[in-house]
Amino acid sequence: MTERSCLSIVLAAGEGTRMKSDRSKVLHEIAGLPLVAHVVRAAAAAGSNRVALVVGRDAEMVEEVATPHTARVTTYLQKERLGTAHAVLAAAEAIGEGADDVLVLFGDTPLVRPDDLSAARIALAEGAAVAVMGFYTENPFGYGRLIEEDGQLVAIREEKDASFLEKQIQFCNGGLMAIAGEHALSLLRAIGNDNVKGEFYLTDIVALAREAGHKVVAKEIGFESVLGVNTRVELAEAEAIWQRRTRRQMMLDGVTLVQPASVHFSWDTVIGQDSVIEPNVVFGPEVSLGQNVRVRGFSHLEGASVSDGAEIGPFARLRPGTELAEKAKVGNFCEVKKARIGEGAKVNHLTYIGDAEVGARSNIGAGTVTCNYDGYSKHQTVIGEDVFIGTHSSLVAPVRVGSGAYVATGSVLTDDVPDNALAIARGRQVNKEGRGRALREHLQAKKDRKK
Amino acid sequence: MTERSCLSIVLAAGEGTRMKSDRSKVLHEIAGLPLVAHVVRAAAAAGSNRVALVVGRDAEMVEEVATPHTARVTTYLQKERLGTAHAVLAAAEAIGEGADDVLVLFGDTPLVRPDDLSAARIALAEGAAVAVMGFYTENPFGYGRLIEEDGQLVAIREEKDASFLEKQIQFCNGGLMAIAGEHALSLLRAIGNDNVKGEFYLTDIVALAREAGHKVVAKEIGFESVLGVNTRVELAEAEAIWQRRTRRQMMLDGVTLVQPASVHFSWDTVIGQDSVIEPNVVFGPEVSLGQNVRVRGFSHLEGASVSDGAEIGPFARLRPGTELAEKAKVGNFCEVKKARIGEGAKVNHLTYIGDAEVGARSNIGAGTVTCNYDGYSKHQTVIGEDVFIGTHSSLVAPVRVGSGAYVATGSVLTDDVPDNALAIARGRQVNKEGRGRALREHLQAKKDRKK
Amino acid sequence: MTERSCLSIVLAAGEGTRMKSDRSKVLHEIAGLPLVAHVVRAAAAAGSNRVALVVGRDAEMVEEVATPHTARVTTYLQKERLGTAHAVLAAAEAIGEGADDVLVLFGDTPLVRPDDLSAARIALAEGAAVAVMGFYTENPFGYGRLIEEDGQLVAIREEKDASFLEKQIQFCNGGLMAIAGEHALSLLRAIGNDNVKGEFYLTDIVALAREAGHKVVAKEIGFESVLGVNTRVELAEAEAIWQRRTRRQMMLDGVTLVQPASVHFSWDTVIGQDSVIEPNVVFGPEVSLGQNVRVRGFSHLEGASVSDGAEIGPFARLRPGTELAEKAKVGNFCEVKKARIGEGAKVNHLTYIGDAEVGARSNIGAGTVTCNYDGYSKHQTVIGEDVFIGTHSSLVAPVRVGSGAYVATGSVLTDDVPDNALAIARGRQVNKEGRGRALREHLQAKKDRKK
Repeated sequence: MTERSCLSIVLAAGEGTRMKSDRSKVLHEIAGLPLVAHVVRAAAAAGSNRVALVVGRDAEMVEEVATPHTARVTTYLQKERLGTAHAVLAAAEAIGEGADDVLVLFGDTPLVRPDDLSAARIALAEGAAVAVMGFYTENPFGYGRLIEEDGQLVAIREEKDASFLEKQIQFCNGGLMAIAGEHALSLLRAIGNDNVKGEFYLTDIVALAREAGHKVVAKEIGFESVLGVNTRVELAEAEAIWQRRTRRQMMLDGVTLVQPASVHFSWDTVIGQDSVIEPNVVFGPEVSLGQNVRVRGFSHLEGASVSDGAEIGPFARLRPGTELAEKAKVGNFCEVKKARIGEGAKVNHLTYIGDAEVGARSNIGAGTVTCNYDGYSKHQTVIGEDVFIGTHSSLVAPVRVGSGAYVATGSVLTDDVPDNALAIARGRQVNKEGRGRALREHLQAKKDRKK
Repeated sequence: MTERSCLSIVLAAGEGTRMKSDRSKVLHEIAGLPLVAHVVRAAAAAGSNRVALVVGRDAEMVEEVATPHTARVTTYLQKERLGTAHAVLAAAEAIGEGADDVLVLFGDTPLVRPDDLSAARIALAEGAAVAVMGFYTENPFGYGRLIEEDGQLVAIREEKDASFLEKQIQFCNGGLMAIAGEHALSLLRAIGNDNVKGEFYLTDIVALAREAGHKVVAKEIGFESVLGVNTRVELAEAEAIWQRRTRRQMMLDGVTLVQPASVHFSWDTVIGQDSVIEPNVVFGPEVSLGQNVRVRGFSHLEGASVSDGAEIGPFARLRPGTELAEKAKVGNFCEVKKARIGEGAKVNHLTYIGDAEVGARSNIGAGTVTCNYDGYSKHQTVIGEDVFIGTHSSLVAPVRVGSGAYVATGSVLTDDVPDNALAIARGRQVNKEGRGRALREHLQAKKDRKK
Repeated sequence: MTERSCLSIVLAAGEGTRMKSDRSKVLHEIAGLPLVAHVVRAAAAAGSNRVALVVGRDAEMVEEVATPHTARVTTYLQKERLGTAHAVLAAAEAIGEGADDVLVLFGDTPLVRPDDLSAARIALAEGAAVAVMGFYTENPFGYGRLIEEDGQLVAIREEKDASFLEKQIQFCNGGLMAIAGEHALSLLRAIGNDNVKGEFYLTDIVALAREAGHKVVAKEIGFESVLGVNTRVELAEAEAIWQRRTRRQMMLDGVTLVQPASVHFSWDTVIGQDSVIEPNVVFGPEVSLGQNVRVRGFSHLEGASVSDGAEIGPFARLRPGTELAEKAKVGNFCEVKKARIGEGAKVNHLTYIGDAEVGARSNIGAGTVTCNYDGYSKHQTVIGEDVFIGTHSSLVAPVRVGSGAYVATGSVLTDDVPDNALAIARGRQVNKEGRGRALREHLQAKKDRKK
């Protein structure tokens, strides 16, 4: 397929009023990725090397979210809404630049499969001028039926025009189309608007291509490939399908998901073999886990790179810029951000590690906090290897704790600690005999007076 | 409908032994609201202006939970269990006070829809003396069939008495009923107990009303309206239906639920448009969120009022009395209770804020705790605007930190801090060279001796 | 049944390559218990008093996980893979020791029900030499059909050998079998390998037993009893079935599960009546809860024994060795490990209690940490009754706080505190007028210079 160039025209100008949203519909996300970016990725995976986005509002944002996922993106504004063919022609300039194949896709069908697009492209490579993508359904009522004869598509028949026998056909127009680049502009421009609504319908291309003596075919694609998102209910349904697909593939690849339905993946999550994900885990963007990693319940990961044998959670939050070396451990109610936790190091209880490095085998006591922010700037904390940080310590960055150092419980470290030193920074204990009881009596009396 | 007065009689005396519970069945909750309160709310929404509760045990508690949800509640004790008509007559006094419409409802069918009750009331307004609410089912076996002729209900036929043809009827008695107030007492009192069990059956009212020359009709209602709760399994099923209904409506109204099945709502949750609820969020009672609020995973909210653009979680707990101003942020492992967090203020890591006010733009460092309780009384903490509270600070209430103040890391504040002051309250740091290593050797030796 | 001895042969040597795992398939877990242990437990519940494990790799670990769940386990290595009958004969020695009943089970069908095994054993007690366990399915294609005549099983017909009429049979071979001990060895050894694959098929025992004049029967068992696990997808499906079964039984027994699908149980979880489990709770192994316990959302429990009326969570983590006395409370972002929390004591916010005792009615302030680990050894913290531990306290173990004592906020306790004493261990507060503003200006200037 690589030898044929391919332009994908993605129609993404739909108003999406049923979303009840201030944002353009195609910017809503599935698995953390905007709908339109899913479509662009599918096109790229099917070998498309250029994308033309046809947008309405939020043009800049739509282009911005699509750009990272394919080679080249150009954006065209659809000013009027005069039908699908008219929308495609908003990208006439892009078609004019020339391409062997032109794919017409929709920005709100995020589950479209690359294989389906590839199949349509192969039809073009085999001589068709137009390949219409269709799907089978047991309830075809309301869909345009694909009428085939001798392996060619002869018409797309709308419900209202269909005969009794045609209405029995379960093979329906999915809307997606592949058009041979050499004929695309002339065919699209030949489409007229002589109909009740006065709109330019892309489906008319079938008749026009056949009249011009071209071959037109229908290619079957999966139902999910044409599943459109029009409300937030449908958005959630598409997300659910995406998640089920991904969970299943993860498990088949050797990852244990104890309670798959309770695990939420991002579009780019990577997990190694024999890793175990316990119930109730959320993966945000840019997370990759090695092998034999265990992620325990109620963990939330974003932007984290985790090496083999590490253990996370329960109740761990890894934020962007977290790196866990092999067998590192981040546990209960711990938050890590822009930090590297060394091999076998442990951050286990009620701790915040931000903008920091923790050396191998170091043990961070419960309730430790790196004070990385002074209200104006962020500063770095560096902890060496084999360090013991006593519980309830505050490390006021910038600060450095040398390897082998031992920091006493409850210390507020403002100065560097040399290698192997013991650091203490806290008040001394005083016990006042009987004063506890006296204080209690005082407080009780005060409370009683208030009543 | 408002011109007609309406009394709702709610039968709530069922023993509920299959619940295996020490509490009355109708006190068990769906979406945080007792079953009986759901029924009372549905009646109120259908225009009922008076409720008569017929209860067995836990009478006071049942009345207490029903009262806040409708205009006027009277409670009647059902001493013996002699059938549904007998149960309704426990509220004879209420009927005697007069009402245009009398609705007979069940305390254990919490999903009853106001629209269904309104339709039955309309039938009375149009001249019927009795309107029986029925539902369609493909498996009618065991239910009483509704036999209609010329738009009127002529009989409710029990399974055992039904002819072969009658058994094919899929329209069944749902138990709920609307009775014209003027005939209610006389019809109910005419019901006898000349049957095998010697019980007074409410369904006999159909024949009696027809004998007296009144019009009797059947009104179709949804299956969910008659779904009874008899075990905790059915309780969970009803809860699941309620949650699905609510999630769907939320999404259609413009709220994004990334993984709807993992979000749990309370009966009174309010969320503004374009807010996003990530996976795994629990809403307890009395929560309202503005627009563009983002609630991240693993957050638990109760009694919280959240303004536009605020961000919550992951791992946030908002307890009753929390108010978040616009763009305020409460994040990881933070708990807020009876506190107002000002506009743009941040409470982001491992913090407890209770009985407090935090001014606009103030930043609360990681591991901060308001010490609001002295073992006897709760005290108030007031933090001004643009304050920086260093990490690991303890604010011993009552205490006031002035606007623009800066509190050093690890401070225990027992005294007020003036505006713009710097407060420090901690021990100084001492580094003892080589002592870390010495201590390690000592501890290792001690451990070795223990073996 | 107890009067008949029973040997269970569990075939657990499957390679399980589709699991894509470094571990043997039968070591993968459902509800925290390895597959093979589920099977061994079912056998034990059906009265089996001896287990012979036929294993391939990981033999030691397989024996180790099975041993705690039944009376006596012997392990046999299956060196070659020459068919099911050959696998069973790997345990010939165990059969030779004699048993009234011999059950042939599979290590990868974890949902097998004891009742199904008991029914097969009863068939032996009633005179059958072989009882084959079969299941009904609407889609029998591919399964061996069980051909019965006059209440006896006459053949197991493979798909390829079945006649048109035989193919309509929906009663299929489940693989599990009960064999009379007195005939087992001779029948098994008579099985030949004169077939295409040259393997020894256990199903041939039916014909051989009948030829020898013995009675052979088929016993119907549930589909779940033969549900095999071959991929991690099937592992998750079996787990889901197990969880649904368990949740349902819990609810029928009087436990409220507000959102059952979000609660994850361990194989050994015990919960008392009228306890309420809110959404999103994970039970690890060895947890038992009394009556009227409330477990709030996002709680994670392992190895915890909880008395009546206690309250846990939200966001609580109970680790092994936790004991909560009546009405004790462990709340938000609190972790408890190897500790006893006394009656009515409260551990409510951001706290770590490890290796400790907390006396009745004591109140542990927010952000308290027991410093139980010095980097080498664990030490004990003992807190008496009616103690008030101020927020942000560090208890450096070993340490003892006497009953009635009062520990001031932010203290680092290194020494014991006598009964009723007041302990303070922190720096004094200093307010420096105007210095907050000066510091802010300084930090802002520093930040500006960096740009």
